[in-house]
Amino acid sequence: MIIDCHGHYTTTPPGVEEWRNTQKAAVAANPAFVGEKGQVRVGDDEIRESLESAQLAFQRERGTDLTIFSPRASWMAHHVGNQHTSKFWSQHQNELIRRVCDLYPENFAPVCQLPQSPGAPIDESVRELERCVSEMGFVGCNVNPDPSGGFWDGPPLWDQHWRPLWEKMIELDVPGMIHVSAADNENFHTTGSHYLGADTTAFMQAMSSGFLSDFPGLRLIIPHGGGAVPYHWGRFKGIAADQGWDFDSLMDHIFFDTCVYHQAGIDLLVRVVPVDNILFASEMVGAVRGINPDTGAYYDDTRVYIEGADLSDVQRKAIYEENARRVYPRLEETG
Amino acid sequence: MIIDCHGHYTTTPPGVEEWRNTQKAAVAANPAFVGEKGQVRVGDDEIRESLESAQLAFQRERGTDLTIFSPRASWMAHHVGNQHTSKFWSQHQNELIRRVCDLYPENFAPVCQLPQSPGAPIDESVRELERCVSEMGFVGCNVNPDPSGGFWDGPPLWDQHWRPLWEKMIELDVPGMIHVSAADNENFHTTGSHYLGADTTAFMQAMSSGFLSDFPGLRLIIPHGGGAVPYHWGRFKGIAADQGWDFDSLMDHIFFDTCVYHQAGIDLLVRVVPVDNILFASEMVGAVRGINPDTGAYYDDTRVYIEGADLSDVQRKAIYEENARRVYPRLEETG
Repeated sequence: MIIDCHGHYTTTPPGVEEWRNTQKAAVAANPAFVGEKGQVRVGDDEIRESLESAQLAFQRERGTDLTIFSPRASWMAHHVGNQHTSKFWSQHQNELIRRVCDLYPENFAPVCQLPQSPGAPIDESVRELERCVSEMGFVGCNVNPDPSGGFWDGPPLWDQHWRPLWEKMIELDVPGMIHVSAADNENFHTTGSHYLGADTTAFMQAMSSGFLSDFPGLRLIIPHGGGAVPYHWGRFKGIAADQGWDFDSLMDHIFFDTCVYHQAGIDLLVRVVPVDNILFASEMVGAVRGINPDTGAYYDDTRVYIEGADLSDVQRKAIYEENARRVYPRLEETG
Repeated sequence: MIIDCHGHYTTTPPGVEEWRNTQKAAVAANPAFVGEKGQVRVGDDEIRESLESAQLAFQRERGTDLTIFSPRASWMAHHVGNQHTSKFWSQHQNELIRRVCDLYPENFAPVCQLPQSPGAPIDESVRELERCVSEMGFVGCNVNPDPSGGFWDGPPLWDQHWRPLWEKMIELDVPGMIHVSAADNENFHTTGSHYLGADTTAFMQAMSSGFLSDFPGLRLIIPHGGGAVPYHWGRFKGIAADQGWDFDSLMDHIFFDTCVYHQAGIDLLVRVVPVDNILFASEMVGAVRGINPDTGAYYDDTRVYIEGADLSDVQRKAIYEENARRVYPRLEETG
């Protein structure tokens, strides 16, 4: 069985964007706008149609089985609006993911976005996580380390700000994927530099602070192959050694996905990162949608690279399935 | 011959820091402080001593010949002070580099820092570049893509802001290394995440804007092995293909150094990046100062990894020397 731990609902029916655009127009006119949750008008047939030709078709073509599925990351846009609007938007997006998983329980397992908002405490996110996991059977969450959208003016992950969230994740036994949203800063390209920079930044925040050792059982997935981290494995190990920081114990908490879209990158990832810390993922349908001329397959058909890597069957099975089951124990109940 | 294109004067005698601390105290008390250039009190013997036990000793030990040498990157700190203080500080730092190269003309070739300052036009940097190259024989410059120190609130590299600098670099036929300075934002660790994030960001700004094609002959070095770029080569190529951006022509302008501190990283770099776009570098004495247990050599002894990589003698010679001579043509006059 192949579990893809990183998929977003990037192909939502038009009713989702319509609802959000109405909300965005309202907060643009009045930043303190609250509004109401209201309704997102999307039919089950529309959901089926939006997936059958995309994520489900790719699952079949590529021979993957289950996608751990969350709302479109670039649309979380925590920097847009306020705590209230972020809450309503997150609730809708998470309920939509629940509907997807109800329609295709064999194909998708639900992960939620959190109603973070710049300057707001994390409490509302803790409540939404509790609701999603306890009431709706979610198996994990996405945590945005920079809800400002590329200005990085909020508290780092080691700050007390985050503690209630980490504690709730441990209590519920769900991991978090560290994943920023769209860049609102013209210096950054969302999927090209902002995502990768944030991945590296999050790892370095964990390494330099050692905060994870205060939270036994806390598990974080750093997506996009860990940003720049595996490529600079020696740099990070060397800095840790110079500073007396505990590099190895990070591996009790941090996992990297395989969203690296060429063979040489995957070869490096599996060469340096312990195999137990690698989770298969493709992020399809996501940042890159074309065909890789080197393989003739889609760039984001990461199974091709994992098959091509120097791995034993035992190692491949760990990356494809067993590690995900260990990191997302609630998969057992749903999947 | 082995040319190391990336070394900083990280071991300056105490008089340098004393001068800067006095200036920093003055701008802390009065942000509009101008002051005077004054004098940095450092003797030639102190300079010799600061290098003999460090950079020069390492050159000998590691068998490298010439280091392209610039002021300590983390100390550029363009976010500290204002245009006036940045100018005086840059002049002193560059004059110190000139003294190093006068003392050891066989061992070092000079590269300057620029007196950038947040919100200020680039004119003062153009003037200092002209002074350093035309009057003091410098062969290149360091360009800080984020003089804010990690808040990224200035103009991206494709903005008109930078045009006079690019034009002057072309006129003088000198390249620029894109290199940020210390992070003033607690979200970032200077050498761990800020440097690597900036490298990736600069590449993406070039790729998404295509601005380099407006500047034939402009050459930029992206240090630290290109940040996350080679590891995510497929992602960048795929995004470029999706968007209709010209990936290949970037290679007329962009070069990556070899400051990647483990064998697997260097193996990836030389596997994916055209060999003509790779310049040998170690950044010693720099971000990582310890011994790599995998090699028994210093982490930043990158020659060990280049020797260990799957390269022909012709390719190795290109990386060690020929590419640097092509990218830094003024080396011929000095070196």
